[in-house]
Amino acid sequence: MACEFKMIHRVEFADTDLAGLIHFAKYLRFMEVTEHAFFRSLGFSILMWDAFKVGWPRVAVECSFSEPVRFEDELEARLLVREMKSRSITYDFLFRRIKPKPVIEVARGSMTAVCVSRDPATMKMRAVPIPKAIASRIETAPSAKGGAR
Amino acid sequence: MACEFKMIHRVEFADTDLAGLIHFAKYLRFMEVTEHAFFRSLGFSILMWDAFKVGWPRVAVECSFSEPVRFEDELEARLLVREMKSRSITYDFLFRRIKPKPVIEVARGSMTAVCVSRDPATMKMRAVPIPKAIASRIETAPSAKGGAR
Amino acid sequence: MACEFKMIHRVEFADTDLAGLIHFAKYLRFMEVTEHAFFRSLGFSILMWDAFKVGWPRVAVECSFSEPVRFEDELEARLLVREMKSRSITYDFLFRRIKPKPVIEVARGSMTAVCVSRDPATMKMRAVPIPKAIASRIETAPSAKGGAR
Amino acid sequence: MACEFKMIHRVEFADTDLAGLIHFAKYLRFMEVTEHAFFRSLGFSILMWDAFKVGWPRVAVECSFSEPVRFEDELEARLLVREMKSRSITYDFLFRRIKPKPVIEVARGSMTAVCVSRDPATMKMRAVPIPKAIASRIETAPSAKGGAR
Repeated sequence: MACEFKMIHRVEFADTDLAGLIHFAKYLRFMEVTEHAFFRSLGFSILMWDAFKVGWPRVAVECSFSEPVRFEDELEARLLVREMKSRSITYDFLFRRIKPKPVIEVARGSMTAVCVSRDPATMKMRAVPIPKAIASRIETAPSAKGGAR
Repeated sequence: MACEFKMIHRVEFADTDLAGLIHFAKYLRFMEVTEHAFFRSLGFSILMWDAFKVGWPRVAVECSFSEPVRFEDELEARLLVREMKSRSITYDFLFRRIKPKPVIEVARGSMTAVCVSRDPATMKMRAVPIPKAIASRIETAPSAKGGAR
Repeated sequence: MACEFKMIHRVEFADTDLAGLIHFAKYLRFMEVTEHAFFRSLGFSILMWDAFKVGWPRVAVECSFSEPVRFEDELEARLLVREMKSRSITYDFLFRRIKPKPVIEVARGSMTAVCVSRDPATMKMRAVPIPKAIASRIETAPSAKGGAR
Repeated sequence: MACEFKMIHRVEFADTDLAGLIHFAKYLRFMEVTEHAFFRSLGFSILMWDAFKVGWPRVAVECSFSEPVRFEDELEARLLVREMKSRSITYDFLFRRIKPKPVIEVARGSMTAVCVSRDPATMKMRAVPIPKAIASRIETAPSAKGGAR
């Protein structure tokens, strides 16, 4: 059972904008990349139409930014499973700049992905229960329940 | 005094992902592009380091997605000034798919940008009051105050 | 018969990088967006799997950059059909900055897209003749044949 | 003296488009990320305005694509210094898909970056000789000279 995952992201040139800092939309990329690496760490690909007949569109995302981040900075993204419902998972993300020192929190966010099946004819999606093989591997993070977040 | 702005965005090929839909991070691009067009509509560029010695980094963003959106769909982004404080502005965004018909809401979000000055030596930013020339042109949207959002 | 198309692109904040200029990869987006608008101007969508059972993957692209381009600059992208073979089209692109003045050329490039069919079972693609309904609407640009390019 | 560098890139969800394949512009990101990692491997940051008073805008790029590449595929990018002039460096890039097997070449390209200084007042750039500390660490790749490329 996993409830947490960590991953390092380097801020690349194309991730910056004219303000000289990371462009805010790139945090969503980091969230998604981390989510998919979390799934790989469990032996799954997030692309599981063939294996499980389900997909994981996101339905909500939020992020707040507390410190500027620059080119070649290295960020640790910590994913925490905040809530697992029968048909969706909500993740919290904590971003800390780990290089250069000192280590500081730079952003935090959350993202909700829904487990959906897809009608082959119409491609219309609808929420379905998370397959047991997957749900049995993921649990809510203890720290996500407390006030500390 | 302006409190609202509308703009059409076409979903381009590079905005989609392998799910065949718009990639969720592209909504942040649409929000930002709309915010900057709103400023241009008032006679300002969001890039106002020279003109006003301030910049507008974003400190928070959120978005929720209710309907799938596809290549070449056209979205109307409606920006509403939800709250203007002395040092920040929070915008609400409503996204409606206007092409193809029928017109439906597909996403909504919000974004907060802070007015900052920058120390020329250290490039360190700190929140400062919004210049009067700008603040005097922007007001809170009436509809943003009600329960209907 | 069409051999040319023009379109205006505004350089958005997310198109810039820390150098304060447009990020070079964004020119490929402009090329592709212009190509797809060219197809729409002919009454087609580049997404024609249903209509014509073919797609248009690109097989080669090049671009050279002669002048810096900045946030909120407006670029005119001029597409010219340089060569139309039975199974591919090569486009030239000329980018001129039209705002701010003076108008100057800032970049030029080319892109080759191949007309392919896709095996439904394996999704394997292979080059096929351009459908006559499309080929009959497109011709090589006279100016593309000369030495002036 | 270094003339070559290798780096692995994973194709992320945001790197794909509705065709189910990597979006072609993402190869430019991979080229640039590899170039910057090459510089770090030599002890430099490509961002060397402070250290060497020079920057490295790109003036030309090209890429051709021979095989489709998909989500979670892993690509090896091999950078080769094809030519080092007094004021510019041209790199060749070979992309091989190393996962899944079999290993195949999927794309190749090249990119030329120019060494420039910047007038502090006007921000106008002009080509200048590559600083000796950098030029003395980089040499042309033997394999880049031959016909095999």
